Amino acid sequence: MKKTKTKIKDEKIYIYGRHSLVEALRDAPHTIKTVFLQDADAETDIVSLATQNNVPVKQLGSEVKSVGKDAVHQGVIGVFNPQALFVDLKTFLKKIDLSTNPAVAICGEIQDPHNLGAIIRSAAALGISAVIIPEHRQVSITGTVVKTSVGMVFRIPIIKVGNVNQTLALLKETGFWTYGLDMAGESLTETKFDRPSAFIVGNEGEGIREKSLELCDYRLSIPMHSRTESLNAAVSAAVVFYEWSKQNANHLQ
Amino acid sequence: MKKTKTKIKDEKIYIYGRHSLVEALRDAPHTIKTVFLQDADAETDIVSLATQNNVPVKQLGSEVKSVGKDAVHQGVIGVFNPQALFVDLKTFLKKIDLSTNPAVAICGEIQDPHNLGAIIRSAAALGISAVIIPEHRQVSITGTVVKTSVGMVFRIPIIKVGNVNQTLALLKETGFWTYGLDMAGESLTETKFDRPSAFIVGNEGEGIREKSLELCDYRLSIPMHSRTESLNAAVSAAVVFYEWSKQNANHLQ
Repeated sequence: MKKTKTKIKDEKIYIYGRHSLVEALRDAPHTIKTVFLQDADAETDIVSLATQNNVPVKQLGSEVKSVGKDAVHQGVIGVFNPQALFVDLKTFLKKIDLSTNPAVAICGEIQDPHNLGAIIRSAAALGISAVIIPEHRQVSITGTVVKTSVGMVFRIPIIKVGNVNQTLALLKETGFWTYGLDMAGESLTETKFDRPSAFIVGNEGEGIREKSLELCDYRLSIPMHSRTESLNAAVSAAVVFYEWSKQNANHLQ
Repeated sequence: MKKTKTKIKDEKIYIYGRHSLVEALRDAPHTIKTVFLQDADAETDIVSLATQNNVPVKQLGSEVKSVGKDAVHQGVIGVFNPQALFVDLKTFLKKIDLSTNPAVAICGEIQDPHNLGAIIRSAAALGISAVIIPEHRQVSITGTVVKTSVGMVFRIPIIKVGNVNQTLALLKETGFWTYGLDMAGESLTETKFDRPSAFIVGNEGEGIREKSLELCDYRLSIPMHSRTESLNAAVSAAVVFYEWSKQNANHLQ
C-alpha cells in the first residue's frame, strides 16, 4: 500500500463507512477507483478485498472534510464511479425473461437521497428486477444513497436513462404494463399483477409528472384514512412492491 | 404581539417551518407554548391561528441557531410541549371500541427521528388507532419527528409509556393480539388480522428486544429476496400496517 497522501477532489463521489465499502468491494469492486484508509493496519478485511480486486489503497489525509459534514466515514472512504454501476436499459431488456412476470421500478425525479436509498433497498428486498433512475432532476447514486440502501445498490441492477417518458414507451413496447401512483387511481388492494410490471414512483412533493402519468396504462392508489393526504414516497413504493411481491412470490428467491 | 426578544433555551423542543406550525396550531394548539416569528407581518395566518388559540407570538431573535443546523425554519418557530400531546394509555384503552378490531403500533426503541416521523405518518394514513412510544432508549417527539410526520403527530393519538413489556401485558389483558416483526416469524402474507392487533416495531439495528418478542402472541415476517437481510424499520412497519388495513378497511374512514 502506498502511503502517499492524495487529494480527493470535490466532484468525485465517495462511499464512506466500513460497511458500505465492504459491500462495494465484495459485490461491485469495478465501481471503486481508490480506497482511502486512515489506519490500514486496522482494516485488514478492506485491504484484502481491495487487493484481490486490484483496487489501489491509499492513506487518508486532510481531504476527509470534503466528504460532507453528515458523513460518518470511520476513516474509511472509497472513490466511487457510479457510471461503472449502471446497466444499459436495452441490454437489460434483452436479457430479462418476461414469462416470469418481472417488475421494474422507475424513479420519477426523487430528490432525497434517503428516499432513493430506501427505494433501492425495498426494491431489492421485494424481488423487483431493476431500479431505473432518470439522468436529470433526480438525485444520482451518492454516498448517502449507497449507505441508505445498505449496499443493495450493488445487488440490484441500476439503470440510468435520459428520459422517463421514452423509457415508459420502450417498456410498454417490450411488454411491460406501466403503473403510476396517483391519489385518484384504482385501489392497490384490488389490483391483479399478472404480467410484467413497471412502477413509477413520483417526486416527493409533486408526484408523477402529468405527461408520464398519461403514459401509464394504469393508475394505482393506496387506500388511506381521510385524516391524511399522502404517504412518504419511499413508503408508498415499498407498499406497492409488497403487494406485487405477494402476487409474484416466484421473484423472492 | 409583543416585540420583546425572548431567549429560547436549549432544553426546549421546537417546531420549525411554516407548514408544521400551522398544523400544530390547527390540530393541537394546546401543545404550543409560544410562537416566534422573524416577520409577523408576513405570517398573518400563523398570527391569526395563534391569537385565536391564545398562544403568545413573539419576535424571533438571535436564538435561531439553537434550533439545530439542519432545521429549515423559514423564520417560523414554535416552542412545543410534547407532554401536552401525549394521551394516557389506560384512558385510551377505556375509550377504544374493541369490537371494530382496532390496531395500535408500539415503537420498540426507535432511534432515528426520521423513522419515528415516518412510522407516525404511515400509522395515521393506514388507519392505526394510536402510536405508543416508550419513555427510555427511544427518540421522543422532536421537531424533526413533527416535520417528517407531516403534522400527523397532531392527528393520531400518541401514547407515552414507561415500559414496553408492561404495555404488552396490559394490551393482551385488554384483548389485543400482540405481533412482533421477526425474520423467523410466520409470513405476513398468510396472516389473518381478525381481532384487535398491537404491532411492535423493533429498533433499527437490533430489532425487538428478546423479552418483548417472547411476550408477543405471534411473530411476523415479511417475505424477502435472499439477496437482502432486512427492510428499513419504517418501511417494514408501513408494509405491516398496509396488510392489516387491507383486511380492516373499516378503519380507513
